[in-house]
Amino acid sequence: MNPAPTESAAPGAELPWRGTLWYVLILVVALLLFWWVCERGERLSVGAGTSSAPLTKEVVDVPHHLLATMAVVIGLGFVLGRSLRWIGQPPVIGEVLAGIVLGPSLLGAIWPAGMDFLVPGRLTDPEGRVASAVQGVASLGLVLYMFLIGLELNGARLRRQVQSVVAISHSSIVLPFILGAILALWIYPLVSDPMVSFTGFAMFLGAAMSITAFPILARILTDRRLEKTELGEIALGCAAADDVTAWCLLALVVGVVRSQVASAAWTLVLTMAFIAVMFLIVKPNLARWIRRWEDRPGSLPVSVVSLTFVGLLVSALVTHSIGIHAVFGAFLLGAIVPSDSRLARDMNATLRDPVIFLLLPAFFASTGLRTELGLVSGWENILVTCAIVIVAIAGKFLGATLACRATGGSWGLSASLGVLMNTRGLMELIVLHIGLDLGIIGPKLFAMMVIMAIVTTLMTSPLLGIIVRSFPDEPAFRRDFAES
Amino acid sequence: MNPAPTESAAPGAELPWRGTLWYVLILVVALLLFWWVCERGERLSVGAGTSSAPLTKEVVDVPHHLLATMAVVIGLGFVLGRSLRWIGQPPVIGEVLAGIVLGPSLLGAIWPAGMDFLVPGRLTDPEGRVASAVQGVASLGLVLYMFLIGLELNGARLRRQVQSVVAISHSSIVLPFILGAILALWIYPLVSDPMVSFTGFAMFLGAAMSITAFPILARILTDRRLEKTELGEIALGCAAADDVTAWCLLALVVGVVRSQVASAAWTLVLTMAFIAVMFLIVKPNLARWIRRWEDRPGSLPVSVVSLTFVGLLVSALVTHSIGIHAVFGAFLLGAIVPSDSRLARDMNATLRDPVIFLLLPAFFASTGLRTELGLVSGWENILVTCAIVIVAIAGKFLGATLACRATGGSWGLSASLGVLMNTRGLMELIVLHIGLDLGIIGPKLFAMMVIMAIVTTLMTSPLLGIIVRSFPDEPAFRRDFAES
Repeated sequence: MNPAPTESAAPGAELPWRGTLWYVLILVVALLLFWWVCERGERLSVGAGTSSAPLTKEVVDVPHHLLATMAVVIGLGFVLGRSLRWIGQPPVIGEVLAGIVLGPSLLGAIWPAGMDFLVPGRLTDPEGRVASAVQGVASLGLVLYMFLIGLELNGARLRRQVQSVVAISHSSIVLPFILGAILALWIYPLVSDPMVSFTGFAMFLGAAMSITAFPILARILTDRRLEKTELGEIALGCAAADDVTAWCLLALVVGVVRSQVASAAWTLVLTMAFIAVMFLIVKPNLARWIRRWEDRPGSLPVSVVSLTFVGLLVSALVTHSIGIHAVFGAFLLGAIVPSDSRLARDMNATLRDPVIFLLLPAFFASTGLRTELGLVSGWENILVTCAIVIVAIAGKFLGATLACRATGGSWGLSASLGVLMNTRGLMELIVLHIGLDLGIIGPKLFAMMVIMAIVTTLMTSPLLGIIVRSFPDEPAFRRDFAES
Repeated sequence: MNPAPTESAAPGAELPWRGTLWYVLILVVALLLFWWVCERGERLSVGAGTSSAPLTKEVVDVPHHLLATMAVVIGLGFVLGRSLRWIGQPPVIGEVLAGIVLGPSLLGAIWPAGMDFLVPGRLTDPEGRVASAVQGVASLGLVLYMFLIGLELNGARLRRQVQSVVAISHSSIVLPFILGAILALWIYPLVSDPMVSFTGFAMFLGAAMSITAFPILARILTDRRLEKTELGEIALGCAAADDVTAWCLLALVVGVVRSQVASAAWTLVLTMAFIAVMFLIVKPNLARWIRRWEDRPGSLPVSVVSLTFVGLLVSALVTHSIGIHAVFGAFLLGAIVPSDSRLARDMNATLRDPVIFLLLPAFFASTGLRTELGLVSGWENILVTCAIVIVAIAGKFLGATLACRATGGSWGLSASLGVLMNTRGLMELIVLHIGLDLGIIGPKLFAMMVIMAIVTTLMTSPLLGIIVRSFPDEPAFRRDFAES
């Protein structure tokens, strides 16, 4: 090879005209050549039978509609969330409402063509390709979100307060569950499907009534700077215990409902086996594996990130294959990662924004598209909806308040805890989706329950403000609790 | 209201038996109640006509297949990437190969049922719902990835080296472009569709030949610790200039090919107008808006994250609506964000891992599903493929090497630059997808070009090693360049 010649400085630095000359020369020659090639080429004919994809395809343009839907739901959710923040509401309310506004409840009713542009209906997209794409992004967002919720679950805090917290949490689940089941006696004949057994319907209604939204509860506490108070400690502990219990209960319900008769036991056995494997085999190995990266500088290695995503997807798939929902597996994997480990912190830091602000809005769009508030018409349906809302509030509020009072809490603490545990938010929508996906509930009950979820979420923050102001001397609201 | 009573410590702390008693009592009563409710409820009958969603739905389970496909492609991509790292290959090669392995080229050929499980074909999923969901996630990943590439584009560096870099970069585009167009004279009658004009075909082939993968080039330089050398500086500058030029060229090509005759001018006018708006109106306002968060402590506000995503999606939608591809808009928005701003850094830090390791694999799966290497059979097709590979390598290598030598670079610098500019990787696949989506190329030429992309990417790292070892005294490889 030729040895390196003398010019070794940055090329072109001392000879600018050489670069320019070269440049112009190249361009002129290239244009002439290209003109000559096209001259010759246009006379060529294409052999028959080599035809490939047609130039104009008639299938619907999936990315176009998907990107448009996501842009609109994120943008509208942001605007609505901003507007509602002035009256003290958490931003998620705006996103939930944005989804509903864009669905058949509002946009579809007043401007069908607009809704059809975002997610084409039967006429433009008979195969439901765009809806499937939205659903795909939504399910990915949901699985990641539940993983994040699991990551935030602080096992140490749960164990520290285990006795009082579990008692309060479980009675705030049991009471709405039972009230929901009793309510089922009335509404089962009105809104259910003959294919669904009463027991399954009642269990699902009960479980759906007993949900508390951990992230929204945490958000409301932070907004009011109450997260470091005694109330904050207990409420976060109860909400975490609620999360674990409610999801176990729901997994049980789904197992029972889905696998009609004999295989219900099989689903339960498999679920238990999966939980046992995750806690007894995966958890210790994972903790050992994670510790290796605990003190290394820089960002997490690529292999850790890739393998975490694979593990997350596989865990979600296993629970999905067992017959309970994919979100359980994702939540469980998040829960067994130590919440104070570097993996949990780093994953949380990177995933939070893209999941919450980009992928999850697809879930809200998907929820909104399936929510037909128009189905809740006529006196009977409105009456049923009111009953659902009242039972949900009463069950959750009374369950938490009375249990806290019975285990020795003051009235101020008990009442504020009751109000906080009543917030359902996004978690309720996830549960309702599971019910709708599995056919346990129909679109009408879905719409009624969505109304319940929105009402209970909307009332939490203002009510908490009233209670905090009513008990000015309550020690549970003192902000120096964590330091003492 | 009742004033707070004496018990104000953490409830249950001093009265553990009270909590336990309450707990057991609640559970027993609840179980009895639920049993009674079910007893009564099972005798209820459901009114006819209230039927909702059926319990067993026959439609394909989109989230299930989507999650499975993503788990497999991420996992296999990781394993292949790891194996290929031992021979000095960048990890993206593993992911590209994983997608192809899972598609009709390998898995579909040896175990059709396996491929059908991942992405069900015509029989199980006649509506193509799963494929649409994979496509949806892939398009989202692609748009975000191109935004990241745009964010990394360092405008200041480009301007500093503008003369030499632009001359080298443009001649490394012009030569493969012309060679590709000449090659089209031979292969147009063999593989094209009569609907596509020769000029459009030749332009697309030329543009596809002239792609350089900026991120893979950067990755290879970093792997060999050459990014702070003179070679690194020039190569990164050239690759960035290449990116901008090649995407502009491609936008032009797509505009010309798509909008057959009269409206080509219209597409071009709209594209120019969009670019002008982005640079003249959006860029200064964006820079002012971004500066507001430059020095604030903590993470970026929620509103900035949401609005950035909305802007990104809208920008992608605009270019998509104009008739060029959605990725152009995303890239352009990324490019006008100052690469040293906090928004660029924070967005890069949060988006990088989820986009590259989670969403982009869906794109590789989507690429693999559309790549049918089996179409490249028979001597003629293999000959055409070899010709494509040779022309691609010769055009890019000679173009960059000769231009660098002509503008005053040493032989060592010129040859290593030529080798680096030849890497095509992921960028080439994106371009090929655009061609296939728009019907400019068919599945056969797509498969041939995918082979070319893989071969040119595979050869870069080993060849660079050989050249660096052959010129031990070359100053352009000295690692103290940046400091001097």
